[in-house]
Amino acid sequence: MREHTDKHYEADLLHVRERVLAMGARVERMIGTAMRGLVQREESLAREVMALDAEVDLDEKEIDELCMALLAKRQPVAGDLRFITLCIKVVTDLERIGDQAVNISERTLELLAEPLLKPLIDLPRLSEMAQGMVRTALDALVAKDLEKARRVISTEDEVDKLNEQIFRELLTYILEDPKSAKRAIGLLFVSKYLERIADHATNVAEMVIFWVQGRDVRHASGLEGG
Amino acid sequence: MREHTDKHYEADLLHVRERVLAMGARVERMIGTAMRGLVQREESLAREVMALDAEVDLDEKEIDELCMALLAKRQPVAGDLRFITLCIKVVTDLERIGDQAVNISERTLELLAEPLLKPLIDLPRLSEMAQGMVRTALDALVAKDLEKARRVISTEDEVDKLNEQIFRELLTYILEDPKSAKRAIGLLFVSKYLERIADHATNVAEMVIFWVQGRDVRHASGLEGG
Repeated sequence: MREHTDKHYEADLLHVRERVLAMGARVERMIGTAMRGLVQREESLAREVMALDAEVDLDEKEIDELCMALLAKRQPVAGDLRFITLCIKVVTDLERIGDQAVNISERTLELLAEPLLKPLIDLPRLSEMAQGMVRTALDALVAKDLEKARRVISTEDEVDKLNEQIFRELLTYILEDPKSAKRAIGLLFVSKYLERIADHATNVAEMVIFWVQGRDVRHASGLEGG
Repeated sequence: MREHTDKHYEADLLHVRERVLAMGARVERMIGTAMRGLVQREESLAREVMALDAEVDLDEKEIDELCMALLAKRQPVAGDLRFITLCIKVVTDLERIGDQAVNISERTLELLAEPLLKPLIDLPRLSEMAQGMVRTALDALVAKDLEKARRVISTEDEVDKLNEQIFRELLTYILEDPKSAKRAIGLLFVSKYLERIADHATNVAEMVIFWVQGRDVRHASGLEGG
């Protein structure tokens, strides 16, 4: 096995890294825009997010292709190989985060058809947490930073707590006025989508830890001898 | 670039395929057990599913390692390379399907603390659909069967419709008796978990299609010259 040191190879790896980061920035913006659409009750923002879905799908496919081309042409080993397989997995999570932003926007369109249930305070806080987790998870990926990755994972408890609090509050609305149930459940789903975004960020952080810690483990057992 | 034909290499590929299938069978069983726990109100079944979570996590890590070892040692190209990267992505979905089965079981434990809201008819039907989608998606993967993969994707509409129907029915319960809201929302979440399982199966099917159709596309644009 050979380690690569040439310029083109480094440029290829850098290119993959930049594409993953750009995709991450895109889905993070989508979450922000989706939430502004919900809070400010602006249909155009919701539509903007929904229109970006196809671009995120394309991001994933293109990065997958880049990674496979790199594997085929450069045949990287050890840490680089792990980094590329990590990117292949991470873009799946980023694409799903984009899906969740689209889900938020679809619920927003439904909610816009009815009067405002309540001013939204906790959902934007939950969204900021989730967006922060996505950003920090990608920072951890780029900097191979175990500390940052662990911080993402530890944030999940706060997300769960806030989600539980939102759930209880919305349940109160339903109990006080059953006619508000549909709107309350709409908001409940938004909080679930944000929780899923936090889940995906946690998954990315866990994979980064697995990658950073395992990067010197070059062989797995269970392969036939060769 | 060379194509591999030796016995060991074929055995390695077969081993990866078998591990992915075994993992798929495991998570499919988890969904079934989780739903039996919910329907029959049996705590032991819910606990059984929750105990399997760690095994599924390990499945993913071990299959990832196998794939990376295969990439490093055998340096596969073309269709084999795509198959291995596909497996790396697919096991992420399988692991998340296992997570959803665990979520169902956690909700089951909460629901067991309260009286039965209603006999469950539609949720088991939804679960059968979702389990069938997981099974068919993995069949499609093994047989490189576009037809089966497309069938999985077309089932998603039915899943959405049934999910919508379950949503409306549970909303009726909440409106008739606000005190049932907590239990109804518990069941609503179960239907969301099943929908997520169907989502993951659809994602696997989409990746299989991308893999089968794209397996002769060996190079992606955007790489530096080598």
